[in-house]
Amino acid sequence: MKLRALLVIFLVTASARADEGMWVLNNLPKDLLKKKYDFDLTDAWRDRAMRASIRFNNGGSGSFVSPDGLAITNHHIGSDSLQKLSTKDKDLYRDGFLAKTRDEELKCPDLELNVLQEIIDVTKDVQDAVKPDMKPADTLAARKAIMAKITKDSLAKTGLRSDIVTLYHGAQYHLYRYKKYTDVRLVMAPEHQIAFFGGDSDNFEYPRYNLDICFFRVYENGKPLKTPDYFKFSPTGPKDKELVFVSGHPGTTNRQETYDRLLHRRDHILPYTLQMLRYREALLSQYAEKGTEQRRLAQNDLFPIANARKALTGQYHGLLDPGVMREKLKQENALMPEGKKLPPEARPPAVRPLHEAWQRIADSQRKLRELAGENSKPLEREYYMFERGDAFDSRLFKIARHLVRLAEELPKDDARRLPEYRSSALESLKFQLFSEAPISKEYEQMKLQGSFYFMVEQFGTDWHMTHNVLADRFYVRKSAPDRAREMIAGTKLDDVTERKRLFDGGAKAIASSKDPLIVLAATVDEFARSYRKRFDELEEIQSQAYADIAKIRFQKFGTAIAPDATFTLRLAFGTVQGYEVDGVKLGHATTFDQMYARAKEQEYHQPFDLPKRWLDGKDKLDPKTPFNFVSTADTIGGNSGSPVLNRKGEFVGINFDRNRHGLVRNFVYTDHQARHISVHSKAIVESLRKLYDADGLVTELMGK
Amino acid sequence: MKLRALLVIFLVTASARADEGMWVLNNLPKDLLKKKYDFDLTDAWRDRAMRASIRFNNGGSGSFVSPDGLAITNHHIGSDSLQKLSTKDKDLYRDGFLAKTRDEELKCPDLELNVLQEIIDVTKDVQDAVKPDMKPADTLAARKAIMAKITKDSLAKTGLRSDIVTLYHGAQYHLYRYKKYTDVRLVMAPEHQIAFFGGDSDNFEYPRYNLDICFFRVYENGKPLKTPDYFKFSPTGPKDKELVFVSGHPGTTNRQETYDRLLHRRDHILPYTLQMLRYREALLSQYAEKGTEQRRLAQNDLFPIANARKALTGQYHGLLDPGVMREKLKQENALMPEGKKLPPEARPPAVRPLHEAWQRIADSQRKLRELAGENSKPLEREYYMFERGDAFDSRLFKIARHLVRLAEELPKDDARRLPEYRSSALESLKFQLFSEAPISKEYEQMKLQGSFYFMVEQFGTDWHMTHNVLADRFYVRKSAPDRAREMIAGTKLDDVTERKRLFDGGAKAIASSKDPLIVLAATVDEFARSYRKRFDELEEIQSQAYADIAKIRFQKFGTAIAPDATFTLRLAFGTVQGYEVDGVKLGHATTFDQMYARAKEQEYHQPFDLPKRWLDGKDKLDPKTPFNFVSTADTIGGNSGSPVLNRKGEFVGINFDRNRHGLVRNFVYTDHQARHISVHSKAIVESLRKLYDADGLVTELMGK
Repeated sequence: MKLRALLVIFLVTASARADEGMWVLNNLPKDLLKKKYDFDLTDAWRDRAMRASIRFNNGGSGSFVSPDGLAITNHHIGSDSLQKLSTKDKDLYRDGFLAKTRDEELKCPDLELNVLQEIIDVTKDVQDAVKPDMKPADTLAARKAIMAKITKDSLAKTGLRSDIVTLYHGAQYHLYRYKKYTDVRLVMAPEHQIAFFGGDSDNFEYPRYNLDICFFRVYENGKPLKTPDYFKFSPTGPKDKELVFVSGHPGTTNRQETYDRLLHRRDHILPYTLQMLRYREALLSQYAEKGTEQRRLAQNDLFPIANARKALTGQYHGLLDPGVMREKLKQENALMPEGKKLPPEARPPAVRPLHEAWQRIADSQRKLRELAGENSKPLEREYYMFERGDAFDSRLFKIARHLVRLAEELPKDDARRLPEYRSSALESLKFQLFSEAPISKEYEQMKLQGSFYFMVEQFGTDWHMTHNVLADRFYVRKSAPDRAREMIAGTKLDDVTERKRLFDGGAKAIASSKDPLIVLAATVDEFARSYRKRFDELEEIQSQAYADIAKIRFQKFGTAIAPDATFTLRLAFGTVQGYEVDGVKLGHATTFDQMYARAKEQEYHQPFDLPKRWLDGKDKLDPKTPFNFVSTADTIGGNSGSPVLNRKGEFVGINFDRNRHGLVRNFVYTDHQARHISVHSKAIVESLRKLYDADGLVTELMGK
Repeated sequence: MKLRALLVIFLVTASARADEGMWVLNNLPKDLLKKKYDFDLTDAWRDRAMRASIRFNNGGSGSFVSPDGLAITNHHIGSDSLQKLSTKDKDLYRDGFLAKTRDEELKCPDLELNVLQEIIDVTKDVQDAVKPDMKPADTLAARKAIMAKITKDSLAKTGLRSDIVTLYHGAQYHLYRYKKYTDVRLVMAPEHQIAFFGGDSDNFEYPRYNLDICFFRVYENGKPLKTPDYFKFSPTGPKDKELVFVSGHPGTTNRQETYDRLLHRRDHILPYTLQMLRYREALLSQYAEKGTEQRRLAQNDLFPIANARKALTGQYHGLLDPGVMREKLKQENALMPEGKKLPPEARPPAVRPLHEAWQRIADSQRKLRELAGENSKPLEREYYMFERGDAFDSRLFKIARHLVRLAEELPKDDARRLPEYRSSALESLKFQLFSEAPISKEYEQMKLQGSFYFMVEQFGTDWHMTHNVLADRFYVRKSAPDRAREMIAGTKLDDVTERKRLFDGGAKAIASSKDPLIVLAATVDEFARSYRKRFDELEEIQSQAYADIAKIRFQKFGTAIAPDATFTLRLAFGTVQGYEVDGVKLGHATTFDQMYARAKEQEYHQPFDLPKRWLDGKDKLDPKTPFNFVSTADTIGGNSGSPVLNRKGEFVGINFDRNRHGLVRNFVYTDHQARHISVHSKAIVESLRKLYDADGLVTELMGK
């Protein structure tokens, strides 16, 4: 409700910047920390933080919390593995899990963890490959080629996963080298109902009461990994007003987006995306209502969809506020007021590059929503539907597409491949592709049929791509359920042996395969690739325009601004502190007894139905144990599971959410009410000890 | 899944017709009943059925079941009153209700019941008013004028509510005279969880286990109404294969729709409507999840939305099936194969009217989706958004619109008014308008804000109507929450005194009112009316074309076909019988013990969570009591609450749903698997007696 007021406030006060910044680890704001917080951020502190932080490749963060490879993340990050380790009769996602001994730890079928070892600045090498007179398509190709070479060489030299990260919209390029772990075992998870107490209703809200944690252990050569760099649990946790750090992998921020881009986001991207998310959420919720097994199958897919729907709804409503957009425009014009009201040719030469960059971005938006020809839909929609795969929401289809594309891409030079098939990424991709995680055909069919219907609803029955998807190989048009049924019933891609056979057989095996999903993926590939090509070219134009703007901002603001998030390791800092909403003061932390009061007030109705363990065990717990707390540090999606650290580098909590006032952080940082939310280290220890009989785990965490 | 197969089957076998027909009471298929079932349908039987059947004006059916004005309907039809009689502390919708004595019966704030007394054929009067050389707009006006006159005269003469019903697309016009009752009191309702056991998941499915009942008593002059015409409860209920009758108020069927109209429905009406329904369902579900009170406020609105979403999804998917549409086209062409492949001018004169009628309908569909001008959206969408009110989903807005329009309409001649403001309808409208039912401003604001956002999502931020709605009276553009907040906070329309003041004050009071909802309704009215005018003109063109087609069908098929449903009293018949799905035989009835087994299998998880009364009382019940049963009789939405009668005219059950195979009955009747579903009279008696301590009620029902 108050989003508008707060958006205006942040836009007005954004220049103050406060604790803004998801800082790259080779450019930390040491002076600022010294000056504002009297804190010396040493290289040793930094290096340990780097090597004790973990990237979960399914989209989250985590950290080592013992010298024996014990790792913690959120339940909602571990959930993918919890789901895959569950069966019809044993639902670990819903009911939780505890390995009493190391022998009982469960190996996850396809969980890959990355731990950053080294960052190397390769800006000069990349920029030198691009010549000033190149066209956008050529600069894109040149940049792709040099980046492919650098990562390939790095992999060959070090054996480490090597990725290049584009920072400041191309002002900097850094090579990140990771150790990669694929033998990861489940140690402990609480019940879903306490990890996500309050459900969608309390998601992005505060006060909160979630034990959103999950423990894994990393193994190497069949033994627990030795991890000298880890975060020791703090016995006290954080205090009010204390300085804290968040070390994690924020996914994406868009803080430099222009006014025109935000308009396009508001009027085109978000309405479509929300329709898609609402469609999927309804589809899966209705399926989950059918019974226990259906609920088990759908529950893990449902959370990220509902979560995105709620977050993007907040963004959409924020951007729809006229006050917000007026302020954004004012702010943009203020960046370079000279020439603002002049026609282009009369502007001083110094401001022309900025205005031209803005114009190029505006033109690209227009092209994204234009039809490419008579037989087409807006480019961006075509891209979402067929390249991002909104028309094919199915794990088996994704496998089919990878196999079809691998057969075409692998024979090419590394530099000419689509990025996801370059040598540096191949090992991780194969790890996913050949995962033995179980796949329910009934569930796949429901999802595929649902996405076919979604495609038809959006693009109509008579469009050429609808025909391509819904006509069988004899060109007979079928209904969506018939097509989904024959594809899922006929495919053998649920069998890893068959995937390996097709992978090994390459183009010949793919061409002769009659597997209906392979045939579908091959049929649509030419179109999907052409949408992607045109989409990527527009992205490149924008990316270069943003690079030009970034240069100008750099001249104005210097190096004191952190780059936008890129799902790579960043360090943020802030202070633990409550805030006020409509005259109501919200404290910096909640407690167990407040959670019990809330459950009671809600009559224990779903999603406020506490697990039996928590109802029965109420009296065992210290009711005043701090449960969740909030801080001003700068986080975003991807930071889920990030350790929260104190000055000593001890683990004082684990981040799992933002409040709704923090939803705007995609576009701008504010600490007026905006907070990230974490589980307090004391709540973890107290519940592990008193409710979960996990004394062994506690001993390992506390270092006894 | 099997919808396609069954749709093809019905289209192929539709000519067999079986037990098709929602028959008007002055044209019952007596010969057919005699011949097929050896049943003599006497006038006495018919007259009692007519006067013992009740129309619930909020969209359902019911019947008298005792001589003292006791009426039964579905829980989901009584729900509106249950909701309005509830408070923050007492949730009758969720927890049920029983009046132990007549003093405890609760008066419903705005429930109106209609009981049909007489039908008079006025076809000639109506048709004579239309001259052959009139243009569509003039025929519409002429027909409106004569219909207004007939109903006004009838009201003046009899004091009975008088409506004209258009049958066979204008081949017949009948005047219906109703007794109207507005003192209706709640007697008994079970818990929502047993009335709707299985929730959305089992909705439109069978086997079913729902006690979807609710009892009211009709009062007149402060005393229970004497109702000599009522249905006595059958002590045995229906047997397998028994002939049964359904006497109720089916809402709308579209069995004559042309291929082109169905294409338009499939490609335009249904995708939009489903987006709207999914949007609202998500909005209300998410609101309901916030807490007990929010759930209480939203629950009654949620059911019809989810119900429509599921039914229309079934229709949409059916129409998307290529096999179904091919069959429909074949069938349509078969109606008059001569000239099918000839150019229009070469067709035999006899078939030209049919082809021209088809063409006029096709042209109207095109106009519905065309833009009227540069500054417009497709006409049909504009109509839905601003005239139907998709942009203003709020009870308070509806009140405001009525007040604004009443001030403009009442001074006009009856014939020139919008139909809903004619003399004959005025009393019922005022009864609703001045209802003292409580209105939650928090809930209204949430819904209004949500529909503003929906409007923006569909029509964009820059459209003139968006400005009209979101700019305040100083022409300052606001955000959707700001506008909804200032409107709902500022309106006094929640106070019935203020509504009466504005009603009595007429145009002058409306013009000088600064009530923000009155201002909004007045601001958009010119546009909304213009959309309606153009929409109605196209409806009239279609309506005349359908009348032409109906004539041709009449020549071909005679009087043996019942007219499409019109939310007026109809009698359908069929036999109680189970059916087979994928080789699985489903019996004609379910039993209590099967319900308990299903709840257990679903781990008592919502929506399979039985009320405590049913869990605790299990052993009191005879487990083999038949609970729900199915029959082939022809029903549709609006039939909810219809009594099911045996040959003797006894009450053997109450209809509450169709199965999914019956969803296609909007477009075509089939009895291959398609069934309507009813609560068995024995289940009602058994549960009232054993679980609800309602012996008094049972005695009244059984006539002891």
